[in-house]
Amino acid sequence: MVRNPVTNYRFLVEAEGVEPYWLTAGGIVEHEIPDDMDFRVLAYQAPPVWSADAVIYQIFPDRFARAADAKPLADVDLPEWALPREWDRDEVIGQGPGTSEQFFGGDLDGITERLDHLQALGVNTVYLTPVFPARSNHRYDASTFDEVDPLLGGDAALARLAEAVHARGMRLIGDITSNHCGDAHEWFTRAVSDVHAPEREMFYFDEATGEYESWCGVKSLPKLNWASPLLRERMGAVLRRWLAHFDGWRVDVANMTGRRGAQDDTHEVAALIRRGLPGEVMLVGEHMHDPTGDLDRDGWHGTMNYLGFTRPVWAWLRGDGDLDQFFGTPPGVPRRDGRAAYATMRAFASRVSWRTLTHSWNILDSHDSARIRTVTGDAGRHLVALGLQVTLPGTPMVYAGSEFGLTGWNGENARTPMPWDRPADRDEDTLAAYRLLLRLRAAEPALRHGGLRWLHVTSDTMVYLREVEQNAILVAARRAGGEAVRLPLDARLTGVYHATDLEPDDSGTVTLPGDGPSLRVWRLGPPR
Amino acid sequence: MVRNPVTNYRFLVEAEGVEPYWLTAGGIVEHEIPDDMDFRVLAYQAPPVWSADAVIYQIFPDRFARAADAKPLADVDLPEWALPREWDRDEVIGQGPGTSEQFFGGDLDGITERLDHLQALGVNTVYLTPVFPARSNHRYDASTFDEVDPLLGGDAALARLAEAVHARGMRLIGDITSNHCGDAHEWFTRAVSDVHAPEREMFYFDEATGEYESWCGVKSLPKLNWASPLLRERMGAVLRRWLAHFDGWRVDVANMTGRRGAQDDTHEVAALIRRGLPGEVMLVGEHMHDPTGDLDRDGWHGTMNYLGFTRPVWAWLRGDGDLDQFFGTPPGVPRRDGRAAYATMRAFASRVSWRTLTHSWNILDSHDSARIRTVTGDAGRHLVALGLQVTLPGTPMVYAGSEFGLTGWNGENARTPMPWDRPADRDEDTLAAYRLLLRLRAAEPALRHGGLRWLHVTSDTMVYLREVEQNAILVAARRAGGEAVRLPLDARLTGVYHATDLEPDDSGTVTLPGDGPSLRVWRLGPPR
Repeated sequence: MVRNPVTNYRFLVEAEGVEPYWLTAGGIVEHEIPDDMDFRVLAYQAPPVWSADAVIYQIFPDRFARAADAKPLADVDLPEWALPREWDRDEVIGQGPGTSEQFFGGDLDGITERLDHLQALGVNTVYLTPVFPARSNHRYDASTFDEVDPLLGGDAALARLAEAVHARGMRLIGDITSNHCGDAHEWFTRAVSDVHAPEREMFYFDEATGEYESWCGVKSLPKLNWASPLLRERMGAVLRRWLAHFDGWRVDVANMTGRRGAQDDTHEVAALIRRGLPGEVMLVGEHMHDPTGDLDRDGWHGTMNYLGFTRPVWAWLRGDGDLDQFFGTPPGVPRRDGRAAYATMRAFASRVSWRTLTHSWNILDSHDSARIRTVTGDAGRHLVALGLQVTLPGTPMVYAGSEFGLTGWNGENARTPMPWDRPADRDEDTLAAYRLLLRLRAAEPALRHGGLRWLHVTSDTMVYLREVEQNAILVAARRAGGEAVRLPLDARLTGVYHATDLEPDDSGTVTLPGDGPSLRVWRLGPPR
Repeated sequence: MVRNPVTNYRFLVEAEGVEPYWLTAGGIVEHEIPDDMDFRVLAYQAPPVWSADAVIYQIFPDRFARAADAKPLADVDLPEWALPREWDRDEVIGQGPGTSEQFFGGDLDGITERLDHLQALGVNTVYLTPVFPARSNHRYDASTFDEVDPLLGGDAALARLAEAVHARGMRLIGDITSNHCGDAHEWFTRAVSDVHAPEREMFYFDEATGEYESWCGVKSLPKLNWASPLLRERMGAVLRRWLAHFDGWRVDVANMTGRRGAQDDTHEVAALIRRGLPGEVMLVGEHMHDPTGDLDRDGWHGTMNYLGFTRPVWAWLRGDGDLDQFFGTPPGVPRRDGRAAYATMRAFASRVSWRTLTHSWNILDSHDSARIRTVTGDAGRHLVALGLQVTLPGTPMVYAGSEFGLTGWNGENARTPMPWDRPADRDEDTLAAYRLLLRLRAAEPALRHGGLRWLHVTSDTMVYLREVEQNAILVAARRAGGEAVRLPLDARLTGVYHATDLEPDDSGTVTLPGDGPSLRVWRLGPPR
């Protein structure tokens, strides 16, 4: 019987002739240590069953697709802030004036029309960045949470998209800014114009100056104050209301939500939000820094695992391009060999439960980052990265467009309109690899639910097993060519991705090829 | 300006020809890691200034001294539970019937009469285990918090002791059971006998069965429920009231206080208690497990550092005796070499701020443990342990009697009445070493306030520097003889404890002697 919501454990190994040592989530340790690398059992309500099998596809609506029957942008009565741009012609502005105002006109019906592409790719969950009206193309500055942006097709278009997604057995995830809203938001306009408005308590106003707190000092994003009962009530209602269409929420800057100076209500707010939602709703918090202290609690099921997955993968597979920035975390993305990248992944993984690790999102890139193709600099290492994303524990989140090998050196620059009609921008080999690997994950329970055993890590190679009771999958990732890897593994290997079948030799050793960059996957069977 | 109560930092080292690496509180790390080994600045109210210089002497009142003019125990009207014992004659019962009932009759005036011994020893802070009336010799089962046990001399005796302690410029620390009280406590007797009593909410009663929660299932120790406003009010009043005499509190089983199943109010309760006390009051929480998650908060200034200090020191310096138990933590006290013991100390130290580390208590033994003399098995390693206690960061807490080399194989067995009149039980050489080393700490600011730099750690040796701006102290601890240690240290070493002066050779190397067990201390000066 588990009496506590979180129960730590680790294994004490006692054997003849050696002092006892520990087997922890961080590996073997031959001295006494604090509990933070313990394994953990959580008794908090489990994430929804379906989410363990999710393969997520992230869509930034303005750049994904415009409905076939939509009016040309030139004929649309756009709001004053919007700068209309031509889908297949105009360059995306990556920084400076126009970055948030350039408007390509993607809409929700455009997504509905392209669901065949998603299903062919092998994803089963669509995650939309915000769809509420705002004064920017990214819509993280909502002016209301009560309707879908008419520029996207309004409430009816979301209903059509949700219905079409669900009809295919897929799920739909929304994006909520729990930390802030836009300065045009109806809550804020009331609060700022009347010190006696009930909404005043929902924000942080300085009584003396009337100044208000905002996200990173950006005044168009006033920070929400979760000490306010009114905010709790209203935001709870918003989160529940849209479940008419959404199966879960990605929570924007979850790490800042409820935090300001000495005020730290983040865990309480996360728990409040989770308890206010039905158990089948996925809830994942964005975190750009070390998230481990905010997980394994009664709140977010997982995080966007930028630090424990994205960064070490980038560090291992990066090309020669400039990668000074990584969400503001120094030293950007250093060059790390396989052992250091492995150590980083393991360090972060060991500080959360397996449940939280597997329900966190393995991300190669997103609307907030450079594209993986630009990070790696070539298709070979890009597909090695994809292999890690699909086969390591965690929920893969594919950023729309990366399946075509799109490029981009920062989040804004990489929000390229999808190349539906630009054959030159579509790498069909990369697309084929995405389809194979995402479908491999769907086909192999070991890749979704299996344990993880690291077999071999060197500067240029990572080899590991994913195992369920019935079978096991062997993954060999190489960033460069080198020596063949000899593994003491008395098993027959059946190639299931880019790999020929292999047999153990008489000593029970299999030899994996040494060419690279390469990503190979085998299924294990008993030796003949 | 520090805006947050806890601010993490670590150093990024960038140099030609190597990838950037981290300098953290846990040492150098050549890959990316979570924040838990970061250095930390705390902006919470600081511990009292005096506590940074404290050298604590723990007294278990029943076993320390009986006032010269007190009646013989045989003439005292003892409570029914008490089994009178003869101070210099009867063996202490270490387990089984009589353990908590054996009554040797130490009292507070007995302590007052022995303060010369404490001052000669070099301690400046007296910590008393509980002094409230109870039904045991340890008094952790208080029957009231409103008076001092008449068997100890009552309120007046505490006032006399406090006055005498303060007159010598020393401090007095009390011991409070914030997690429980005794089942004879007036709060509990009211609560248990009347379901409508206001005190009912102060405990955990099962509504159906009337059963109540207790410390580790020991029904004589009913657990206090900090969700109760009445408990918060009454306990706050108790903690403040006794500050008429006490300069601080040691909080018993602080790690359990406010915790039960999913209820976890520990941090809130610790902050509530601290904020209810003036800033000059020391507040240290007992913790028998990994304490790091409960520190660096607005509560306890530090902990009794059993896991981060006591255990690795025991593991390194232990003899061949049986040490299966260490507060229930497996695997008891394993045998560890110097590198493993160092790694353990560093692992725990790196997860708290320097402020919390230095305000936690370095303990070799206590009323709850075996005696260090029994752990080490000889005087030589005992004094090596003492050297670590006095010279490593942390507040030394000496358990009364260990300065005479008393022995004992568990907490109860080791509560030996002090050997004031038993010359055979007094190791005068050990006493002399305590006096020298505790006074060395008082004389050298580097040992109280200096930084720590590890210079050399091997299986049998630990060598480190404590440094302030004005000077530095070099400590060399060896558990066994072996090779001399050659250090690249271009400094003249002036012996200040068991050490002859040393000069660097022409290459700027000093050679430390290889004999052991040994503990040597030098003061560093510029080379001639």
